[in-house]
Amino acid sequence: MSGTSGGGVGPDDAGDGAGPRVPAADAAPARRQARLGLFLFAAGYHPAGWRLPQARADGAVDPAFLHRVAQTVERGRFDFFFLGDALATGVEMQDRFPSQMARLEPFTMMASIAAATRSVGLVVTANTTYAEPYHVARMLASLDYLSGGRVAWNVVTGADGRAALNFGREQHAETEERYDRAEELVAVVQELWDSWEDDALPRDKATGAFADPAKVHAVGHRGRFFSVAGPLNVPRPPQGRPPIVQAGTSERARDFAARVADVVFTAQTAIPEARAFREDLRRRAAAHGRDPDQLAVMPGLVPIVGATLAEAQRTYDELNALVVGDDDLRPLSDAAGVDLTARGLADPLPALDGPAHARARAYVALAQDATGRPVATVGALRDFFRASGRGHRLVVGDAVRVADLIEAWVTAGAADGFNICPPYLPGGLNLFVDLVVPELQRRGLLRREYEGATFRELLGLPRPASVYARG
Amino acid sequence: MSGTSGGGVGPDDAGDGAGPRVPAADAAPARRQARLGLFLFAAGYHPAGWRLPQARADGAVDPAFLHRVAQTVERGRFDFFFLGDALATGVEMQDRFPSQMARLEPFTMMASIAAATRSVGLVVTANTTYAEPYHVARMLASLDYLSGGRVAWNVVTGADGRAALNFGREQHAETEERYDRAEELVAVVQELWDSWEDDALPRDKATGAFADPAKVHAVGHRGRFFSVAGPLNVPRPPQGRPPIVQAGTSERARDFAARVADVVFTAQTAIPEARAFREDLRRRAAAHGRDPDQLAVMPGLVPIVGATLAEAQRTYDELNALVVGDDDLRPLSDAAGVDLTARGLADPLPALDGPAHARARAYVALAQDATGRPVATVGALRDFFRASGRGHRLVVGDAVRVADLIEAWVTAGAADGFNICPPYLPGGLNLFVDLVVPELQRRGLLRREYEGATFRELLGLPRPASVYARG
Repeated sequence: MSGTSGGGVGPDDAGDGAGPRVPAADAAPARRQARLGLFLFAAGYHPAGWRLPQARADGAVDPAFLHRVAQTVERGRFDFFFLGDALATGVEMQDRFPSQMARLEPFTMMASIAAATRSVGLVVTANTTYAEPYHVARMLASLDYLSGGRVAWNVVTGADGRAALNFGREQHAETEERYDRAEELVAVVQELWDSWEDDALPRDKATGAFADPAKVHAVGHRGRFFSVAGPLNVPRPPQGRPPIVQAGTSERARDFAARVADVVFTAQTAIPEARAFREDLRRRAAAHGRDPDQLAVMPGLVPIVGATLAEAQRTYDELNALVVGDDDLRPLSDAAGVDLTARGLADPLPALDGPAHARARAYVALAQDATGRPVATVGALRDFFRASGRGHRLVVGDAVRVADLIEAWVTAGAADGFNICPPYLPGGLNLFVDLVVPELQRRGLLRREYEGATFRELLGLPRPASVYARG
Repeated sequence: MSGTSGGGVGPDDAGDGAGPRVPAADAAPARRQARLGLFLFAAGYHPAGWRLPQARADGAVDPAFLHRVAQTVERGRFDFFFLGDALATGVEMQDRFPSQMARLEPFTMMASIAAATRSVGLVVTANTTYAEPYHVARMLASLDYLSGGRVAWNVVTGADGRAALNFGREQHAETEERYDRAEELVAVVQELWDSWEDDALPRDKATGAFADPAKVHAVGHRGRFFSVAGPLNVPRPPQGRPPIVQAGTSERARDFAARVADVVFTAQTAIPEARAFREDLRRRAAAHGRDPDQLAVMPGLVPIVGATLAEAQRTYDELNALVVGDDDLRPLSDAAGVDLTARGLADPLPALDGPAHARARAYVALAQDATGRPVATVGALRDFFRASGRGHRLVVGDAVRVADLIEAWVTAGAADGFNICPPYLPGGLNLFVDLVVPELQRRGLLRREYEGATFRELLGLPRPASVYARG
């Protein structure tokens, strides 16, 4: 298998993947190195992360704290720092999603972080359903200048229907309509970025030619959703076209991603399904004439790290003991595929040996694999559900165990790397950077120094020419 | 006159104001200190500013350069750094408005500048005609956090009709419609800022209460232009409600400013008219039950500074010799109120002694006062027009002459201070900060240290409570 090492799995490989290990010979060609992103949940990915004594509960609105987190990510040689977004909130989110209830706006926050970092990529989310292409194009172009060419755009169409009510609409548009709009919007934004050719501003003091009129173009877009005259009022961004990130899982989203995305985020918990997802995207990209190696597929990963497995498990237990609110047996039952609502938390799990319980058995196996110990009671399974409630892969362990999982997935072609979701901040990230990152570097799975100036260079992507540039 | 010193005008007071000096006893109460803002034209306010050998021509998109400019403003103890904006451009602007043709988006740029400064206010422009209140509210709230409470919002409705074509509209709305929309938008934004009470996020680790549901409020706005459910997804900004800046001159704009603005920008060239404008605004503010001293009126000022008047005049001449493009005799004739289009640049100005030439005489007197020397030819008057083409007060001089003008205007109640427009950067600003600022400080006209942590504190404004807070 090109670009991977055989047998690099560490000594503690018992829990490195749910389901059967995929033989390397069958795997799609994988990059040897893992890409890493930080998926920022400022109050922690774990719903009670903020309550740990060592956690910062109010970091979400403190620029000094956010800068330190981003600098830690950069010290860990991650590919990027990623900010999600939503356009609605409600105080009922506080027990399960405190990180997403109230936070800073991504563009302004990322511009601040750009000023405090030097090399790490900066992925910022903009929802296309409630946006104007001229605004989006100029904010991203501006952020690309402010970061020295390190920005990427996570294109979302919005999963939260409540957003409509904050933007004067009666209801959220359907998926197809939202994607139609997103595709047109992305195309217009990219044209606007191209509207100034790279050398459109000679600023020639000798002749007095500030701009070259032949290299500034109106885009003249008239489409189903948008009419935009152009040109943009920001020169062409340093990267030409900042990379596109996408995270949808629907058929439509996959096709969109395969055509326009450079990075795909996903939630995957087992190697076989993750590999099938990644290979599907790679096939689709190839069918659109793209090089599949220029599309990075990155599932989320929630690492609960300790100096030892036992220490990590203690943190995991401590986190789970701090959760407040509903008992979560209803959503747990939905997630596990077995009705546990009538049971007590101390009760043992029911027998799951029938053909109807394949999904429940896999869920319990995942919980055991993730936590590194038996999961025998309703309460233990409920705790696992809470700790990984948004569907990302959880791993409780020391550096070797966490690195084993990352290596196994990358080696198996199940991922190009992971979007890391620390359970709390800053410690949950610091432990990953201080313990897991050196282990990944030791294995040759992670860069020791940044190898590119722009995010495109870091991702190994060429810089596209303006569509208006004459060859 | 309260709060002013008598007789503080410096030795070189020949050219400190156009028109008759207004006796201090007649003047409205003025603050003793002048407020100063930087009105950023990154390629210089002067159309050929970027061509000077000592000017940076490409600073508009260089964050390191912009940071240094903002740090210089802070070293000069200015009240604020101000970013204008426009939502359309065209390459035909390059000869006269190179600074406005292509630049960074204000919110992202200001977030970057916030990270590089500590005390100076940050005034950011958002056009209400093409904006959604939810987006504007969260970007300003976010920027207020990122700056430690230093942001203000310059509310504009857009003077450039071309913007409509970048936002899917057939034409720019009329003034009344634009202001109707602006007023509703500002009100919704302020309600959204209030939607989280100041203590809505206890983040109590002991009890697990991250938020206090009783202190988070839906705004439920349904108006003519906007329907917004709320709450905002950013907690209440540090300043509660960031200050509002306004710059319109129409009857409607003045009334709007008098009701909601904390700072008003204006273009004024002579003390009597400027004083009348300021007093009109103060009367209107008082009629709305406001303290007029909480409304700062700040004209623009273009200072061309030298160690001596002669040195400043040499820079002025050098700048004018570098202008390219049309001869500008048509717009000069419109501005001066006399047709000069048939004349040569070396020709003497025509006799302007008739009753129809009062405006032209005042214009020539202003040019002479501003430049500190006779203006006798068509070319000399055209140069003055170009150097002050956007209508702001120009002054060519040494530190004493520039400080005299500032002192005279503030003492006369014609201004609360000035929005400084350097003719080129960074030198045009550096000379002001290195020479004029110490002179102002020596006269007690400018702070030596920042006296407040937030921009509201710097402006002497109280912090408003959330409308939802129960007394």
